[in-house]
Amino acid sequence: MKALMKMLPASGLELREVEKPVPARDEVLIKVKAAALCGTDLHIIDWNMWAQNSGIKLPLIAGHECCGEVVEVGKEVTGLEINDHVSVETHIPCGKCLQCKIGEQHICNDLKMFGINTNGCFAEYAVVPAVCAVKISKKISFEFGSVFEPLGTSFRAVQKCEVAGKNVAVIGCGSIGLFAVASALYMGASQVISLDISSPRLEIAKKIGATTIINSAEEDTVNKIKSSTNGYGVDAIIECSGNVGAIEQGFKFLRKGGKYALIGLPGKNISLDLGSEVIFKGASIFGIHGRKMFSTWYALENALASGRLNISPVITHKMALEDFENGIELAKKGIASKVVFIP
Amino acid sequence: MKALMKMLPASGLELREVEKPVPARDEVLIKVKAAALCGTDLHIIDWNMWAQNSGIKLPLIAGHECCGEVVEVGKEVTGLEINDHVSVETHIPCGKCLQCKIGEQHICNDLKMFGINTNGCFAEYAVVPAVCAVKISKKISFEFGSVFEPLGTSFRAVQKCEVAGKNVAVIGCGSIGLFAVASALYMGASQVISLDISSPRLEIAKKIGATTIINSAEEDTVNKIKSSTNGYGVDAIIECSGNVGAIEQGFKFLRKGGKYALIGLPGKNISLDLGSEVIFKGASIFGIHGRKMFSTWYALENALASGRLNISPVITHKMALEDFENGIELAKKGIASKVVFIP
Amino acid sequence: MKALMKMLPASGLELREVEKPVPARDEVLIKVKAAALCGTDLHIIDWNMWAQNSGIKLPLIAGHECCGEVVEVGKEVTGLEINDHVSVETHIPCGKCLQCKIGEQHICNDLKMFGINTNGCFAEYAVVPAVCAVKISKKISFEFGSVFEPLGTSFRAVQKCEVAGKNVAVIGCGSIGLFAVASALYMGASQVISLDISSPRLEIAKKIGATTIINSAEEDTVNKIKSSTNGYGVDAIIECSGNVGAIEQGFKFLRKGGKYALIGLPGKNISLDLGSEVIFKGASIFGIHGRKMFSTWYALENALASGRLNISPVITHKMALEDFENGIELAKKGIASKVVFIP
Amino acid sequence: MKALMKMLPASGLELREVEKPVPARDEVLIKVKAAALCGTDLHIIDWNMWAQNSGIKLPLIAGHECCGEVVEVGKEVTGLEINDHVSVETHIPCGKCLQCKIGEQHICNDLKMFGINTNGCFAEYAVVPAVCAVKISKKISFEFGSVFEPLGTSFRAVQKCEVAGKNVAVIGCGSIGLFAVASALYMGASQVISLDISSPRLEIAKKIGATTIINSAEEDTVNKIKSSTNGYGVDAIIECSGNVGAIEQGFKFLRKGGKYALIGLPGKNISLDLGSEVIFKGASIFGIHGRKMFSTWYALENALASGRLNISPVITHKMALEDFENGIELAKKGIASKVVFIP
Repeated sequence: MKALMKMLPASGLELREVEKPVPARDEVLIKVKAAALCGTDLHIIDWNMWAQNSGIKLPLIAGHECCGEVVEVGKEVTGLEINDHVSVETHIPCGKCLQCKIGEQHICNDLKMFGINTNGCFAEYAVVPAVCAVKISKKISFEFGSVFEPLGTSFRAVQKCEVAGKNVAVIGCGSIGLFAVASALYMGASQVISLDISSPRLEIAKKIGATTIINSAEEDTVNKIKSSTNGYGVDAIIECSGNVGAIEQGFKFLRKGGKYALIGLPGKNISLDLGSEVIFKGASIFGIHGRKMFSTWYALENALASGRLNISPVITHKMALEDFENGIELAKKGIASKVVFIP
Repeated sequence: MKALMKMLPASGLELREVEKPVPARDEVLIKVKAAALCGTDLHIIDWNMWAQNSGIKLPLIAGHECCGEVVEVGKEVTGLEINDHVSVETHIPCGKCLQCKIGEQHICNDLKMFGINTNGCFAEYAVVPAVCAVKISKKISFEFGSVFEPLGTSFRAVQKCEVAGKNVAVIGCGSIGLFAVASALYMGASQVISLDISSPRLEIAKKIGATTIINSAEEDTVNKIKSSTNGYGVDAIIECSGNVGAIEQGFKFLRKGGKYALIGLPGKNISLDLGSEVIFKGASIFGIHGRKMFSTWYALENALASGRLNISPVITHKMALEDFENGIELAKKGIASKVVFIP
Repeated sequence: MKALMKMLPASGLELREVEKPVPARDEVLIKVKAAALCGTDLHIIDWNMWAQNSGIKLPLIAGHECCGEVVEVGKEVTGLEINDHVSVETHIPCGKCLQCKIGEQHICNDLKMFGINTNGCFAEYAVVPAVCAVKISKKISFEFGSVFEPLGTSFRAVQKCEVAGKNVAVIGCGSIGLFAVASALYMGASQVISLDISSPRLEIAKKIGATTIINSAEEDTVNKIKSSTNGYGVDAIIECSGNVGAIEQGFKFLRKGGKYALIGLPGKNISLDLGSEVIFKGASIFGIHGRKMFSTWYALENALASGRLNISPVITHKMALEDFENGIELAKKGIASKVVFIP
Repeated sequence: MKALMKMLPASGLELREVEKPVPARDEVLIKVKAAALCGTDLHIIDWNMWAQNSGIKLPLIAGHECCGEVVEVGKEVTGLEINDHVSVETHIPCGKCLQCKIGEQHICNDLKMFGINTNGCFAEYAVVPAVCAVKISKKISFEFGSVFEPLGTSFRAVQKCEVAGKNVAVIGCGSIGLFAVASALYMGASQVISLDISSPRLEIAKKIGATTIINSAEEDTVNKIKSSTNGYGVDAIIECSGNVGAIEQGFKFLRKGGKYALIGLPGKNISLDLGSEVIFKGASIFGIHGRKMFSTWYALENALASGRLNISPVITHKMALEDFENGIELAKKGIASKVVFIP
């Protein structure tokens, strides 16, 4: 089968012909129908510091966001059958630690990652741990099925902030941020104010339905948000930029009593005046990593089935696996938001 | 001023000319801009058993759902000014009981009702306790402002059931039920299944966006709902019919772990097998009376300001106060959903 | 091995010598160290209508509440080792249904019960599905380990009612009710008012620490509770009697805004005025069946390890398996609360 | 009357004879029965940078934590009568802002502080805004009544962390921390691990019932906590030290999925790796400022009435107002925990 592989500890990927893998007794083999490119993949492709220290073993089939059809089922697997459509949960839980036991396996103490600690999905076929192969309705398109993983993170962050009838700011309009915009609108946020420093990204936010877009490189973000919220600031922030300055600025436009969900991973420490920004404010801050397994998936599948969760504008490019260099280029340049490969 | 009054303990209302009232030190006087007709008003108009036993003192200016402009402010009132637009909260809390002290004044131990225990709003002017006069944005139309009270009950019930990405059934498509349909869609319910025995009401539900309508007099409700939910039943029910049979049937199509919000007031006791319907099911049941004061109002005002909470189809008729007999007739016959008087 | 068995569809149990069972690949074999007698066991022993219709297949080794030591591990089992101490979760989830997928496997759609749908634990050894064998600290005594299952139900009901600094009534002082008394005190309830019609049971409640005991056959329950709560009623009720009259009475002494957790299974339907008792009251009602798997177990294990959860008075009798007839007799007569067999 | 006053912008207080104040129409006059010394008072007494910039207008009667008997009632005040016992809420809400409207008046946008922005309670009599005079049971001693305010902050932080059956660390054993220890034990925390660098303070924690005490200046805090929690870390932290190093260290012993409540006000910014400490961890952080008005007070009054909330060891010294210099000295030297003046 064809597979996009990282062969050497250096920049780049190669399209290779490899053996179709065989699922172990607790795995399934899927025919990959759609696979989406993620920022993490770009780190691996570039082989940057993070990737070098990530414990990745080469060679590796890249990619972790995907959707496919089950074609082979390991002998101990229950609840999955050939022809089922599945979307893949990236977090592979150990099943034994405290968090796994108490319903928090998305933050398993010994978390492995599909496509990072195992071979991934930029290939015609992929082996997936059965626990991570989530059966979804055949009514959901493969493209949409391929983005459950990133979308689910945004969706959960928005759920956590209880946004119905509230004013929400989304910081960062990469695909995670755009999914948060769509999720916030879907769940009844009143204002959804989108921030970024890239106008094309902000245009996609607008297309999804963001009620205000702010180019925070050019506008007085804090005052603009305060003036659109009677001077109070927003009820909730979904942080998807990972930018330290933007995260710190967020505390300036969060209202007293507000909720701040953090998804984006900053490259360095933030510096925070806990007194004025968190304690006197009575703020709540939530670290969001991954999806509740699998209540987030259930809600998300229903949401997509409703046709009212408007994520189409986020998937800007679909292409064959062979065109991967173009896809990577478009993503790096910020021309593409979500690139989906159809192997 | 003109006022629609119940003068005698018998059926009917009279349009009379009365003195414009004067607000006490903790009240405001409003010029009523829109006032909506509620089922409770019909009970009072008909002077049925409930009304006869309600402790109402006659004569009474009827009506309790309204919106207006502040024209006079009692001398101890703070936070309200002449020209402010206000919508009226019906629940008048005592301010002294346990619930009032702990943020649950909507279920005050000594609750009084505007328009029932006091003169109401089917008039050119109305005196309103300052605590119940909720300032709203001037961007919200008076018609919408006049239905915050019933809409807020539905909105809160839907919030309580955490419907984002969930399948929801709304039992009863009177105006409370229709508001629940709109609220559930607004907050991201996936399926919103509406039940009633009146086709015209169901048509309004459809117009709002209900994903399925079921005429429960004609269709096999339980099976239809189960088959649209993979056999499980719905995640949440918003009960707005007050019909004992319908309430009992609801338990048959609520999934295990489901939430059941009760708004409609049944005329007699229900009979319930707690074991199979509640305990083994792990169900949660919530009695919903009124609106959180005033967090529901804040969220609702934002929701209406967003333009995405689709309640327009519910307000089927607007008319002058003089046409009240026609309005009452339309409401009683079920031809109208929400009738709004413009005094 | 010795085992207490129901051989025929009639009243009684027999102590028999049977083959030591062999665990399947997803099961473990435990040496039973302590096994507790439950009301459900009494139904099975008596072979009453419920038992006859329960789908039980005979012969059956009775008993489902137990604690033991792992002596053999099925070949696919991970996370359990020989010599581990385990307490047994009775609810055997299917692992495939919606509830199982979204973290609500305690209300699995196809729930099986250990000791009812499978052979149980009134024996020297028992085979337990690995998913139901919960490893616990060796610091916890076997007797305490044998009652995690019933205690966990009470503990979860009390958690759900958020009782810290609240006034709580516990209806019914069977072992479930007594565990609720202990749990409510442990979690910081202020008043814990215990109701029953049996003075000896109430005495145990007192011994645990109940702040008030009421013999509801003899005292004016509603007024006594109201007068001890400034006329408001209690903030929460934990219903453990299953008595229809008692459940209905509970609504009379629940304060507006109160929470009502239902554990006891009534033998017939209740009749309820939803308007006055639930809706106007803004009450919340929770059906409680089983334990969250396994967050309840984690909290409970910690609670027992603290030494401050006072359940000792509930375990009134410990005896050899051979003395089973005596144990059953004591339980039926209400002389014993919890009887623990040491096989 | 006698009053402890700050007359000049310099260190120290003076005991003066002043006019007994007169309550305005929305105030009450109380005879102060007990008044407690707080860290904030020490800042004011020392007239440090914070005090100089706090907007305090001199002369000022110091003190804000107190309990007393109502002796005069402003003419618009309802719900309070002469002879009522009241404890004073320090947060004076504006009653008009968003937070005040939606039940979050403890974080009012225009918060004033009793004893800082108004004259306080280190005097024989004090004028208190009626909204802040909380009627409490006469069964509660005046000393306990005088510490509702600080105790309520700790109590609410512990409530927020849902500690029943969980392992909790309390950082800092000043009076706020000690109250948190008592509250955590009261609400059913399993382990309550107390950290400080002062052995006498830790001894008080021990006396209250802390299950482990750690002198973090001398012991390997992180490893000691991890080893007592199977390597996971604690489920919740109540931060009461305001020490930047201690706050940062807390993130090292918080388990994945843990909750971190912040009360202590750090003197400078913290530096935080959000990725590893918050996001990957799925941590929740809550800023805690003041008490829910007045649900925290209700729960707290009940808790104290139960006799099981063990705060006695925190109140180390009681003395006459005339002995104030001794009391301040004892507090500054860390010999006293809570000093209560009896005017």
